[in-house]
Amino acid sequence: MSGPSPASSPARRGRRPGAPDTRAAILAAARELFAASGYAGTSIRGVAAAAGVDAALVHHYFGTKDDLFLAALQLPVDPRALLAPVAEAGVDGAGERLLRVFLGVWEDDRNQASLLALVRGLAEPSGQRLLRDGVLEMILLPLGRALSLDRPEQRMALVASQLVGLVILRYLLRAEPLASLPPDALVAAYAPTLQRYLAEPLG
Amino acid sequence: MSGPSPASSPARRGRRPGAPDTRAAILAAARELFAASGYAGTSIRGVAAAAGVDAALVHHYFGTKDDLFLAALQLPVDPRALLAPVAEAGVDGAGERLLRVFLGVWEDDRNQASLLALVRGLAEPSGQRLLRDGVLEMILLPLGRALSLDRPEQRMALVASQLVGLVILRYLLRAEPLASLPPDALVAAYAPTLQRYLAEPLG
Repeated sequence: MSGPSPASSPARRGRRPGAPDTRAAILAAARELFAASGYAGTSIRGVAAAAGVDAALVHHYFGTKDDLFLAALQLPVDPRALLAPVAEAGVDGAGERLLRVFLGVWEDDRNQASLLALVRGLAEPSGQRLLRDGVLEMILLPLGRALSLDRPEQRMALVASQLVGLVILRYLLRAEPLASLPPDALVAAYAPTLQRYLAEPLG
Repeated sequence: MSGPSPASSPARRGRRPGAPDTRAAILAAARELFAASGYAGTSIRGVAAAAGVDAALVHHYFGTKDDLFLAALQLPVDPRALLAPVAEAGVDGAGERLLRVFLGVWEDDRNQASLLALVRGLAEPSGQRLLRDGVLEMILLPLGRALSLDRPEQRMALVASQLVGLVILRYLLRAEPLASLPPDALVAAYAPTLQRYLAEPLG
């Protein structure tokens, strides 16, 4: 599994540090392990072993385990950078701000294909793990904590359930009239839902 | 395509009326055609031809095209029968009644496997068509019309987006704490959302 063995698959081939495809080999190993074992079940050391490199090299290319996991999701944007202003402005209006950031990413044609590939991964256990550990745990839950919500896990799961459903109806099924509504109409329809899930009593 | 040809695939094999697997052959042909062409693009005549039987026999076994389509979805329950009381009691409280019917079906272990198979179909264009034409057009939209909603297409698409997202987070991803919440807590969280989508101003 470790050391050079040029005939094996890219994810498991050993490489000299700095070889041009070392980064790609680490990323392929990370995708495979995160999908098989989830975030908690995967270690930097395990990814390094699968890629046939030293753990220090994984840190060198990708930073922390969180950074590596987000890289493995192959998102077209860095959600943490986009969501920082949502949290910084506080909980008032956070539902609308979150929705506008979310729609801004999805409405950009350059992003949609790779995001839809992630959504189609819902059909497989590996894709389900990436979505649960990635989108919910790594992206939405930190936002809920940054907003100092009570019960952030439950509130962000509710938020996720509405955002996932919106994506499926509008971008995957292209169900009309939802698929053709302008973003402002989506904000009018969905922002109150998200704001209630974030900050209002839930019964 | 029509007439007996015992060597071809089951969906296209001609059968004598009343042969025990005629019904199954019609259903297989219907699933194939609805998935490929959607509800509007499929006719009883086309299904009959693909199954190698007379159109009258399709009507005999399955009733109308709507009935055939719902049979092709292979739902474990008849959604029209379950939703009739939701509509009959009027729009006040319809969000909660719809949600309780929906959760009643999903919380029953006998239903979950076949329903989840339908949801995993989201990954493929054929499954996307079945869900859009089936769940949205054939189940939810008639409820919206029976409730005399304004803009029933838009309102029921919003409702669908929340129900689909709930299913994905709770039953498919099993994201905690949503996966473990008792149904009454789900009703407290989601019924106001559905009621607003059904009956309140949407901005």
